[in-house]
Amino acid sequence: MTELNISRQAHLAHVAGLKLARMSDDDKKQLLLAFSQALLDEQQSILIANEQDINNAYQAKISDALIDRLRLSAERIFEMSEAMKALANIKSPVGDVMEERRIADDLLLKKVRVPIGVIGVIYESRPNVTADVVALCIKSGNAVILKGGKEAIHSNRAIVKILKSCFDNIDVSKMAFVSDAIQFIDATDREATYELLQQKDDIDLIIPRGGKGLIQAVIEHSQIPVLKHLHGICHLYIDKNADENMAESLCINSKCHRPGVCNAIETLLIHEKVAFDILPRLAEALKNNSVKLIGCEKSRAILKDDSVQLATEEDWETEYLDLILSIRIVASLEDAILHINYYGSKHSDVICTKDEQRAQVFMQAVDSACVYHNASSRYTDGAQFGKGAEMGISTDKLHARGPVGLEELTIYKYLIYGDGQTRN
Amino acid sequence: MTELNISRQAHLAHVAGLKLARMSDDDKKQLLLAFSQALLDEQQSILIANEQDINNAYQAKISDALIDRLRLSAERIFEMSEAMKALANIKSPVGDVMEERRIADDLLLKKVRVPIGVIGVIYESRPNVTADVVALCIKSGNAVILKGGKEAIHSNRAIVKILKSCFDNIDVSKMAFVSDAIQFIDATDREATYELLQQKDDIDLIIPRGGKGLIQAVIEHSQIPVLKHLHGICHLYIDKNADENMAESLCINSKCHRPGVCNAIETLLIHEKVAFDILPRLAEALKNNSVKLIGCEKSRAILKDDSVQLATEEDWETEYLDLILSIRIVASLEDAILHINYYGSKHSDVICTKDEQRAQVFMQAVDSACVYHNASSRYTDGAQFGKGAEMGISTDKLHARGPVGLEELTIYKYLIYGDGQTRN
Repeated sequence: MTELNISRQAHLAHVAGLKLARMSDDDKKQLLLAFSQALLDEQQSILIANEQDINNAYQAKISDALIDRLRLSAERIFEMSEAMKALANIKSPVGDVMEERRIADDLLLKKVRVPIGVIGVIYESRPNVTADVVALCIKSGNAVILKGGKEAIHSNRAIVKILKSCFDNIDVSKMAFVSDAIQFIDATDREATYELLQQKDDIDLIIPRGGKGLIQAVIEHSQIPVLKHLHGICHLYIDKNADENMAESLCINSKCHRPGVCNAIETLLIHEKVAFDILPRLAEALKNNSVKLIGCEKSRAILKDDSVQLATEEDWETEYLDLILSIRIVASLEDAILHINYYGSKHSDVICTKDEQRAQVFMQAVDSACVYHNASSRYTDGAQFGKGAEMGISTDKLHARGPVGLEELTIYKYLIYGDGQTRN
Repeated sequence: MTELNISRQAHLAHVAGLKLARMSDDDKKQLLLAFSQALLDEQQSILIANEQDINNAYQAKISDALIDRLRLSAERIFEMSEAMKALANIKSPVGDVMEERRIADDLLLKKVRVPIGVIGVIYESRPNVTADVVALCIKSGNAVILKGGKEAIHSNRAIVKILKSCFDNIDVSKMAFVSDAIQFIDATDREATYELLQQKDDIDLIIPRGGKGLIQAVIEHSQIPVLKHLHGICHLYIDKNADENMAESLCINSKCHRPGVCNAIETLLIHEKVAFDILPRLAEALKNNSVKLIGCEKSRAILKDDSVQLATEEDWETEYLDLILSIRIVASLEDAILHINYYGSKHSDVICTKDEQRAQVFMQAVDSACVYHNASSRYTDGAQFGKGAEMGISTDKLHARGPVGLEELTIYKYLIYGDGQTRN
């Protein structure tokens, strides 16, 4: 029963996606503005549904942290609505000509940006993701299939109902069947997710948003290409000729500004030539910011502080997401690069140095989506990068790396113009 | 035993790929020129190995067509060597700056082209693919893992041995361990392929080249992103105001120029307003080119020819790869678009019309990698598109569509330059 419905939903999304791909940017803007207004007008129904999810969560004895992620308020709904409005006013990249040139037999070739098609988004307990994802997909011309976490089912259902109702108020001839471009999988079981992951004829891309367990399950079961954020093991490397003040402020900002997010650093690497001078100062500053330190033998020998635990192999590949930092002294720039490429997660890594040439070596050699010279890792973010909004941050190496905004939700096609050319 | 070797090979490729990514374009050029020369110098050993594969194929009573694909000759080796030389002299896109702009807090962001990393290529019986794939991967800075068909194992082994030997003649300090960037899976069983498809920590992309059975098996078993060419069901749509002479020459060229390849058309769609005038003429021209016709009811009624079989639902989704063409009369431009988006394979489709506006509608609405106005579908090809060489043609909608050349074997990373910026 579910199987039939999901494959039908995927097919409806596919057909609607083809219509959405032909919609003008102005029509998409009007639609997003209608979404934004409807969220405000109908917020009461969202709050009531959310109350039901919260009550169920308490009964299921779910953790406070999770309940906090689940909870909506008038303020949070206002933020969702404002984000939608902001995105409405950004120009969609669909239709942009990326390349235009003459090819064989004087044919004119244009490489043009188009939507990907149908995007399936699998996420966990935050109901605001529902609105954000719909906005990004519709604005980039993609149909979207939503599969949220079971904890948020009532909230998600209410939000989707409000968004879909907006299609009714818009010129019907333009929009016939376009409302099918938003599909909500109204199920709470994992089997529904697995069925979704089989619909390779109708879904072009799966984006899982959540913890490692979810992502691993998606990779294992999906027959559809997956774009994912696996984890954020980010590094700050302090080179032998770094500015000490800058090193300290980058270290504190990258670690402490928001330790629970993916672009915070987890490991500090220091060149052995400066470790003796700089590490004690950094350690003090970190401790003043309540950061627990874990260190290699050499750094412990310098710090002579029993509270600094000895780092194990596991520490170098752990995303603490907390006020914890592992520290390693390295013998050279090349050793820093080797460490990062071996233990890192291809997310965001920083070199702090006054030497431009060494910075260039680091930036070329470190295989990460974002490599920084003398700046905090915390800048890896769609808004900071000027992308308006983001679907997430990709740590994959295909299609898109780093922040995934509107542009990264598009692909291209070739339009070729002739006057009867045939091939010899 | 095999499992251990394959995971080790994947890891060696990963490490070598990181070195290759830092290699200058000139060094890569020298390497490809060395490959090209070595293929000529050592051709005897390739021919001897190939003879062994051919003998085994005869003993296994393999079809003549397959034996033809398997067979190498001095001429074919010369072509492989020349293709390698041509690619050596094309500028690699690695390092190109795709975007440069200021982002938050006046940070300078550069989006730079980089290799994908490690590409696993799974192919069938053509041993020349081995050399082509190595050339494309190395020139684009990617490590490559080769898994060829069992029929060609001796030929492939000989070719890889020759290519790898070239690393010995180049400055060792530059090239240490870079020869690991070419890995050959010296096994003939499917289990080896399945093991390869599990190495997601070390392999970034799988490209299967072969028939539908191979590709389907790869999609089902791969935990690594797959870029594929599924099939080529291409269409020519003759609109109501097409030039009749042009319609005929596009039809003959698209179908008959090389019927066994993926960019030949399989279905002809004709607007009902002109079918009566144009179809008999086209049918005669096609028959003069030995094309067997299959038609919808309406086209059969016009042609009144018993040799024209009635098309079934299956015909519209069949890639004949032969001198066979299915014909359908459609009531409108929109019906032609619907037919193509429903039955097509997102490869190459053509509209023949004098009406620019209707051409624009078709080109925007048809969801294919390459959409042509008044030109033959046969131009979908890396060389015709000016890409020098191609790995294949993607019918996927993620990362790359259409011909996959050097540029499509790259991705990007962000380099961000600051002077100590931290995030507020």
